[in-house]
Amino acid sequence: MTITGKHLITGEWEHVGHLTFTSVDPRQKVASPVLFYNATPEEIDRAAVAAAKAFQVMRTYPATRLAEFLDRVAAEIEALGDVLIETADRETALGIPRLTSERARTTGQLQAFGALLREGSYVEAIIDTAQPDRQPAPRPDMRRMLFPIGPVAVFSASNFPFAFSVAGGDTASALAAGCPVIVKAHPGHPATSELTAQAVKKAVDACDFPAGCFSMVQGDRIEVGQKLVEHPLIEAVGFTGSLRAGRAIFDTAARRAKPIPVYAEMSSVNPVVILPGAIHKRGEALAEQVAASVTLGCGQFCTNPGLVFVVDGPETQAFMKQVSERMDQRDAGVLLNANIERGLVQAVQETLTREGVRQLTAARPDEGTEGYSYPNTVLQMSGETFRMDAGLQNEHFGPVTAFVVCDNQDDMELALDFLRGNLTATIQAEADEMDAARRLYDRLREKVGRLIWNGFPTGVEVVYAMQHGGPYPATTAPATTSVGMMAIKRFMRPVAFQNMPGELLPDALKDGNPLKLWRIVDNQWTRG
Amino acid sequence: MTITGKHLITGEWEHVGHLTFTSVDPRQKVASPVLFYNATPEEIDRAAVAAAKAFQVMRTYPATRLAEFLDRVAAEIEALGDVLIETADRETALGIPRLTSERARTTGQLQAFGALLREGSYVEAIIDTAQPDRQPAPRPDMRRMLFPIGPVAVFSASNFPFAFSVAGGDTASALAAGCPVIVKAHPGHPATSELTAQAVKKAVDACDFPAGCFSMVQGDRIEVGQKLVEHPLIEAVGFTGSLRAGRAIFDTAARRAKPIPVYAEMSSVNPVVILPGAIHKRGEALAEQVAASVTLGCGQFCTNPGLVFVVDGPETQAFMKQVSERMDQRDAGVLLNANIERGLVQAVQETLTREGVRQLTAARPDEGTEGYSYPNTVLQMSGETFRMDAGLQNEHFGPVTAFVVCDNQDDMELALDFLRGNLTATIQAEADEMDAARRLYDRLREKVGRLIWNGFPTGVEVVYAMQHGGPYPATTAPATTSVGMMAIKRFMRPVAFQNMPGELLPDALKDGNPLKLWRIVDNQWTRG
Repeated sequence: MTITGKHLITGEWEHVGHLTFTSVDPRQKVASPVLFYNATPEEIDRAAVAAAKAFQVMRTYPATRLAEFLDRVAAEIEALGDVLIETADRETALGIPRLTSERARTTGQLQAFGALLREGSYVEAIIDTAQPDRQPAPRPDMRRMLFPIGPVAVFSASNFPFAFSVAGGDTASALAAGCPVIVKAHPGHPATSELTAQAVKKAVDACDFPAGCFSMVQGDRIEVGQKLVEHPLIEAVGFTGSLRAGRAIFDTAARRAKPIPVYAEMSSVNPVVILPGAIHKRGEALAEQVAASVTLGCGQFCTNPGLVFVVDGPETQAFMKQVSERMDQRDAGVLLNANIERGLVQAVQETLTREGVRQLTAARPDEGTEGYSYPNTVLQMSGETFRMDAGLQNEHFGPVTAFVVCDNQDDMELALDFLRGNLTATIQAEADEMDAARRLYDRLREKVGRLIWNGFPTGVEVVYAMQHGGPYPATTAPATTSVGMMAIKRFMRPVAFQNMPGELLPDALKDGNPLKLWRIVDNQWTRG
Repeated sequence: MTITGKHLITGEWEHVGHLTFTSVDPRQKVASPVLFYNATPEEIDRAAVAAAKAFQVMRTYPATRLAEFLDRVAAEIEALGDVLIETADRETALGIPRLTSERARTTGQLQAFGALLREGSYVEAIIDTAQPDRQPAPRPDMRRMLFPIGPVAVFSASNFPFAFSVAGGDTASALAAGCPVIVKAHPGHPATSELTAQAVKKAVDACDFPAGCFSMVQGDRIEVGQKLVEHPLIEAVGFTGSLRAGRAIFDTAARRAKPIPVYAEMSSVNPVVILPGAIHKRGEALAEQVAASVTLGCGQFCTNPGLVFVVDGPETQAFMKQVSERMDQRDAGVLLNANIERGLVQAVQETLTREGVRQLTAARPDEGTEGYSYPNTVLQMSGETFRMDAGLQNEHFGPVTAFVVCDNQDDMELALDFLRGNLTATIQAEADEMDAARRLYDRLREKVGRLIWNGFPTGVEVVYAMQHGGPYPATTAPATTSVGMMAIKRFMRPVAFQNMPGELLPDALKDGNPLKLWRIVDNQWTRG
């Protein structure tokens, strides 16, 4: 399994450009000898044309055939064996245990979309039968279902080299929808990306899918992604990453002659509210849990709890001290890459220049390990300080959290009203704090995609009911999710058929319901 | 029922601005004596703040209460009686019969959303129960449903003074979702808009809804709409109108610090393909039907058939002659306003400057009635001419259609591949042309939101299975519909609840299913 540094386009490994970049081991800050190429506009064009051509074939495949393909992709990723995990660990320093479970999550996700396809009701089949005798005019027969939207561009994230990368959630859901995918691999783990793309290519060949249904291009220049988003044959974009990059892609897509939807998951500080009763009853356990959640994966989770809201008091002061001590005691992890380290140093520095913000932890940025690193950090500010400056909601992407210390519950409710959009919000409370919790949830519901009770936001289940999304700046598309089964809906659009003869209807809309789908027929749910 | 020319804001009729415009009778080109005011930025701000405040109340209402409100709005519109129809006829010249049926459609639509709310499954309740024994970690309980998105700005259309206006489909679906609405009334029918807003206000009062849940602002300046879209408290936009205006609103929303979704339905030429067998067997009837569909409502339908694809031959030549003769024989209708007349004159002129386009009808623009008018017009071009110039797909908003005469079926398939996005596509064919039809539908499916068999695109049923949308430039949001029950989904977004105690869950997600909704529980549809 040689790493070539090339792009996968129309089933071939190739490169025509000369601009290169390397893969860097974040523990040693040492570059690997392999050179990776930046895709050229010509290569992106070829991938897009091939995707459009593949779509003409792929969109005719029954859901079961797409499901078999997803299963095969999962199997081929498994078949890569240890080398995939080891390569990813060398490129990301996320560690073998985490990467092993992330791989399982990734293959499980592919299989879960397969199961969704086999069940079939995700196409939202709706039938309104004709009423030939209706006055003043007959009502026609109308039938509607979802179809794939077309070629999709997927931007990999740095922090999940499997689950939000080449064959991650965006790719899995787009392929499940029946859409060809062109992945722009993340330059932080290009070798891992190439290995994964090898696995997908094997599945494409084994299942006799058109070669253009999956391409992967490499690049560390923003022009690569920009050209991809601008390409007129691309119909939608999936993205996970920073607010700045996500917004740039959103803006590019909105400026196109034909604008296209951008599903960007970008920035979230995931407020955790800890009510006094919870601190009183289980402060020590909570201190450990907060420290664990903030430092999980070296803090590089989009669901990392970046703001912790508490009500001031002696127990709260003691609790914050406990959290800070534990954070100081924990080893500083290794960050993914130089960009993240630089960004984090800058972001925390900027926050600390604001009046009313102070640092509770002792460690200083230069006390890290020899790799890319940042010390585990706890900041503190008052509810009022928080309210006065929206900049204090900027994400610190890494093992950093900030306590927002409110005077009382009213002050806390007020502070929460100032929150921008987030992926999640969490409440830690005791049973006798239910009324306070209810009022807080009511406010928080308007700000987030997921509300958590007595847990922590890190850990995102791949289930039907998951909502991994939220109001801007958490995402650019708050009505959609990028994790869980409903993620497939991002890459589909409805088409209605009026008075269509049965032989021209897709199976999902035929009389007699040959696929045995749950459908809405004349306003009633039925499988008949 | 005096017309004041004012805006409805926080339940009061008011104006502070001084820029005015008038309502013009398009049959006589005579302005009414009432002056209407352009809303000022201050007024728009007040409406938006009131909407945000109303949302805090309205979003807690059960679906049944929203349904009662919609029913009441419908009843209050009916209660306005003939004066509403007469006012609309004076302002739009659409005629009493058409306006009477449009009113019925509008009230029926409000009631249909009420029925949707009472049935309840539109919230898409999904439950994944906990798996406490799952290895390596327990699976949490996860529950997800849709909630209203927040205050919505609705832009009325000129061509449907009821059904796509103040209390039309966008308003009905946004209110049904539980979202406050601020309508930017269309300056073409401001008195009709004021009357309708009076009816909505009565319903707001009768149902004890917060006054801010419905506001209406008037204006003929683009700044009014722009300020509304830019307002940070607006969370989504519904729009029906021209491509130019819709794109401007889309661009404004995309440039906001917090971008918001814009559901703009804009421009469609609704290709109708007539296969040779259909012309052979029922050419005369088809000629009459084409002429009737093109001139319906003086051609001012977003589903007006603007392009008719045929295969050349003696019967086709005779057919085109028949259509042209019928178009010449029909009286030229009255257009809605000066803008539409000017735009149509310009658009047809521009099309006729292109090489290979000729006019089959005899009438000339100056032969219209004394009102705003344009003669019924048929143009003709070859398939090749059509393919070579995307500008030939620009909409002629009025009683104008163009034949695209293809050499054979292959030439026609090629031409259809060049189509941009449209709301609809139609095929007229005989039973023995099924194979050809299948190939055409397969191509057309990628271009449109609705496919029609042996009918005409004009006439859009308000049913569950309707899809009134399509790829750009038909809309800015191809995954959504602006007509039919699924239109409510545009104004909702999902929130998931993780390990939430039952007492904090919304009824739709509670154990025991107190609302008796169809839900997905552990991947199975159930009402249990």
